[in-house]
Amino acid sequence: MITKTHKIKLTLPDGGLKLEKGCSFSEIEVAYETCGTLSPERDNVVFICHALTGDAHVAGRHEGDVKDTGWWSNMVKPGGGIDTDEFHVICANILGGCSGTTGPSSINPATGTPYGSSFPNITVGDIVTVHKMLLEQLGFKKIHAVIGGSFGGMQALEFSVRFPGFAEKCGVIASGASMTTQALAFDIVGRDLILNDPNWNKGDYYENGAPRTGLAQARKLAHITYLSGEMMREKFGRRIRMQENAENNDIDEQKKFEVESYLDYQGQKFIKRFDANSYLHITRAM
Amino acid sequence: MITKTHKIKLTLPDGGLKLEKGCSFSEIEVAYETCGTLSPERDNVVFICHALTGDAHVAGRHEGDVKDTGWWSNMVKPGGGIDTDEFHVICANILGGCSGTTGPSSINPATGTPYGSSFPNITVGDIVTVHKMLLEQLGFKKIHAVIGGSFGGMQALEFSVRFPGFAEKCGVIASGASMTTQALAFDIVGRDLILNDPNWNKGDYYENGAPRTGLAQARKLAHITYLSGEMMREKFGRRIRMQENAENNDIDEQKKFEVESYLDYQGQKFIKRFDANSYLHITRAM
Repeated sequence: MITKTHKIKLTLPDGGLKLEKGCSFSEIEVAYETCGTLSPERDNVVFICHALTGDAHVAGRHEGDVKDTGWWSNMVKPGGGIDTDEFHVICANILGGCSGTTGPSSINPATGTPYGSSFPNITVGDIVTVHKMLLEQLGFKKIHAVIGGSFGGMQALEFSVRFPGFAEKCGVIASGASMTTQALAFDIVGRDLILNDPNWNKGDYYENGAPRTGLAQARKLAHITYLSGEMMREKFGRRIRMQENAENNDIDEQKKFEVESYLDYQGQKFIKRFDANSYLHITRAM
Repeated sequence: MITKTHKIKLTLPDGGLKLEKGCSFSEIEVAYETCGTLSPERDNVVFICHALTGDAHVAGRHEGDVKDTGWWSNMVKPGGGIDTDEFHVICANILGGCSGTTGPSSINPATGTPYGSSFPNITVGDIVTVHKMLLEQLGFKKIHAVIGGSFGGMQALEFSVRFPGFAEKCGVIASGASMTTQALAFDIVGRDLILNDPNWNKGDYYENGAPRTGLAQARKLAHITYLSGEMMREKFGRRIRMQENAENNDIDEQKKFEVESYLDYQGQKFIKRFDANSYLHITRAM
């Protein structure tokens, strides 16, 4: 299934979009994708909210790709749990993200340079307000459903509470109205790792190199919490993986636990695709 | 109750103490404390093994202190769970520690400078071997009990398995024979934070400043795992604490979750008393 990518500049009210914490945006771009055919009655829209580090590419493949690469392709497809033969699916990169929608790495029209440290604090309310403005601008007065998992579930919940009736149905998966104290604590330490990276520079790092070490560490820490203790034991146990190309000849130094290699890999993979400022702003909003 | 502090140089076999992973020590000093009276039959010794970041000061107070400051004073006291009217309690700082027993911050007799990066990898077996050598040097051929919690429990277990019959009883509290995958993973990330601190210098940081930021971060992360999610919720919930002396006038920046203040406090308190190399070596042994 081919999904279509779109980018739109939102029409904002006079004075820009006022944020819940007081600042405002004079310009907001939104990157979003669509798949499945819109019904003639325009009543079959399912809006999907992505999780913390997700993006608009929820399902299918882009023109030219050889296979489906969307993050929820096994669910959102013809005949799938969210059946694209039946529904017109829309998924937008969130405000504050780093995959096309206005975020800290976007160019601030007032300065011509990335927002960086000047990107304002946002809330889940701001994020879903942008979702709703997008949908209205696309001509929808209501939609069939809003749905999301993890941080996407928080958005679906906030969307439904804030705009009652706009979405007929609300799907909240593996999520809640707020984070537990423990989850807060893990995120606090994760943010601290970015803020203490020597490259941090208060968020204005786009010219001189990003706080990649801190971001990778935050991701490694977060990844421990994405598996239950039991699942982690089954998946890795205490198995050792030898590092064949280790610089060091000391055999003890060449050993790594498999779980260590896994976390290293997750950290390195993440910093290629995600922006540290987005990570900070979105986890704070959570 | 007054506890007595002692320091002893172990009598080592010719060629020094050979370690399980191959290196050896030519000299080992052990700092230990005692309380309760030794019976004329010398058969009432309880040896207590301390946890990861503990030390020999298990109970009572030192001469000159106004109140009990031992880390297990509520248990080890006259009439206590470990009754010092009945038992002669011995607790030694572990090999690799930083509170008097030979560890990475001790002076290497071969060089006259701290061991630092040259401190060899140690095991739980090495740690309990030193415990046993201490007890033998003090003239004990057997003891009433060996007991410990958390990493102390791992030592008690290893001591009992390795030297069967030396301790009549073995007490293992909140511990096990090995760490779970999840616990391993948290420690892996914690060590990574120290190793990525700009002050790390491969462990030779005693002259130019320790990797305090990384050590504090590792401690904050570890402290999240020392409370259950439920206990953390009860203790801190999502309560906010205002930072009255915050540099920033932005009210949002002055807010911290109580759990954040708690973790910050734990991190800062820890770096005043603990050595990063000891943290690395002991968690690796675990």
